[in-house]
Amino acid sequence: MNLDKYCYDGSKKFKIDKVSRKETSLCKDKKEAIKRMNENLEQIVTLQQKLYADKTEGVIFLFQAMDAAGKDGTIAAVLSCLSSHGVYEKAFKSPSSDEQAHDYLWRIHQAVPAKGEIGIFNRSQYEEVLIYIVKELWKVQARARRIPEEELIINRYEDINNFEKYLYHNSVRTVKIFLNVSKKEQAKRFLSRIDELEKNWKFSESDYAERQYWDAYQKAFEDCINHTATKDAPWYVVPADHKWYMRYVVSEIILKTLQEMDPQYPVVSQERLAKFSEIKTQIEEELNQ
Amino acid sequence: MNLDKYCYDGSKKFKIDKVSRKETSLCKDKKEAIKRMNENLEQIVTLQQKLYADKTEGVIFLFQAMDAAGKDGTIAAVLSCLSSHGVYEKAFKSPSSDEQAHDYLWRIHQAVPAKGEIGIFNRSQYEEVLIYIVKELWKVQARARRIPEEELIINRYEDINNFEKYLYHNSVRTVKIFLNVSKKEQAKRFLSRIDELEKNWKFSESDYAERQYWDAYQKAFEDCINHTATKDAPWYVVPADHKWYMRYVVSEIILKTLQEMDPQYPVVSQERLAKFSEIKTQIEEELNQ
Repeated sequence: MNLDKYCYDGSKKFKIDKVSRKETSLCKDKKEAIKRMNENLEQIVTLQQKLYADKTEGVIFLFQAMDAAGKDGTIAAVLSCLSSHGVYEKAFKSPSSDEQAHDYLWRIHQAVPAKGEIGIFNRSQYEEVLIYIVKELWKVQARARRIPEEELIINRYEDINNFEKYLYHNSVRTVKIFLNVSKKEQAKRFLSRIDELEKNWKFSESDYAERQYWDAYQKAFEDCINHTATKDAPWYVVPADHKWYMRYVVSEIILKTLQEMDPQYPVVSQERLAKFSEIKTQIEEELNQ
Repeated sequence: MNLDKYCYDGSKKFKIDKVSRKETSLCKDKKEAIKRMNENLEQIVTLQQKLYADKTEGVIFLFQAMDAAGKDGTIAAVLSCLSSHGVYEKAFKSPSSDEQAHDYLWRIHQAVPAKGEIGIFNRSQYEEVLIYIVKELWKVQARARRIPEEELIINRYEDINNFEKYLYHNSVRTVKIFLNVSKKEQAKRFLSRIDELEKNWKFSESDYAERQYWDAYQKAFEDCINHTATKDAPWYVVPADHKWYMRYVVSEIILKTLQEMDPQYPVVSQERLAKFSEIKTQIEEELNQ
């Protein structure tokens, strides 16, 4: 499966108005997508077990999207098959007052996976760029007076790139996934949250209020992806108007990443194997008593 | 007080064999040093209160040294005068197994002060360079196979510089202090830990064992300081053979840093002052009832 068309690693520009949100070109239809996704999940399960045993490398899959694009559902679909040993989801909601008093990567860094682990970030450090730009948060957030206002956003891009490079140096990859939904599809999903009783709890007036900033967010996403797409920490922009296609493509991204990481079961030394054999004899004797 | 001779900000090379560990050139004698230090501490107390009220900037003072150079005593001498609100010491001992499974800045970042706070680091991220180099730890620590061995140390320097730059961008300064003791003075202090009953608890055989790596550590300190001294996160190399002088110079460094930060009590708006006046009247009425 060639994911190049969705991958941004710094070698090409991302233009948000030029990509389709509803295309499904890598798969014939929904039935095939579900079948292939299930096959992918089986392989992912095996690779995750090896990653956990190998304990030499960790990985972050982080998800960003406009509201109702399908982050929660996609994460749940992929996570459902995986062991809770070494795999976790971390959702970054509005920061607490303690988190707000600290530097913005403080709470992000705490959630970084250990070697052998997969961390799924539901929102991420990129909120601290996107909302920051759209809402001009530097005007209200306390900070040292010594840094000029015009450097703040460019500093964030530089710092986030350096943070991801640091993690890469230290055995943790970052893979960034933007679920790209259209404004019309978002409207439809809001409607179904209002109309369908069992979806009512998902609807929030504040999500609807954010919709007025649609164009500003689109521009911020484009800018952000172009400033932070790198070979070692790429962005994937996934068409999100068809949920079945979005989930299938995400399973391909996760599978491809884990295949590249190529985790291995640790090789047990001849010495330890000899010791195993001794212990085996002792256990057998105990059972025979 | 001009601290330039002890300050390394990237504009000159640090040569560890060329600096005196026993000179006391900035102060006539011990009596004068103690007097001036106490004056400094009074000013530091006031500045720390302003910093805590201002809540726009934090600062890390980190201490590195060979064993018995006097880190603990110096930190205690400076901290003794300060409020426990917004000032804390964090000692970085041998990492736990959870810390070892994570990237090395993981535990460091957790300890970074919030805006308004002073964090005193007793050892720091620099242990992860110094011991790493001297003991060639990359040979035993688990890590992703994709990074070539020859890049590991240079990556650490780059990553630590970027981390400190990120903190500076985000309202937290880092000031790095190397207490520079001589090999002969270390020997004397070990002897007094063995000879004096009330100092016995401070002596550890493992500290003595580290002494065999003296030359390697000296080279590592020199290399490390030259790679990580920057204008915004400078190193100070403080002569440590006379404890009274070392403590006095450290008080000068802390005072100078806080003076540069220039914290201010927040200005209360006319509106709030008017509100204060209303509340004052209400309290007075309550008292008169």
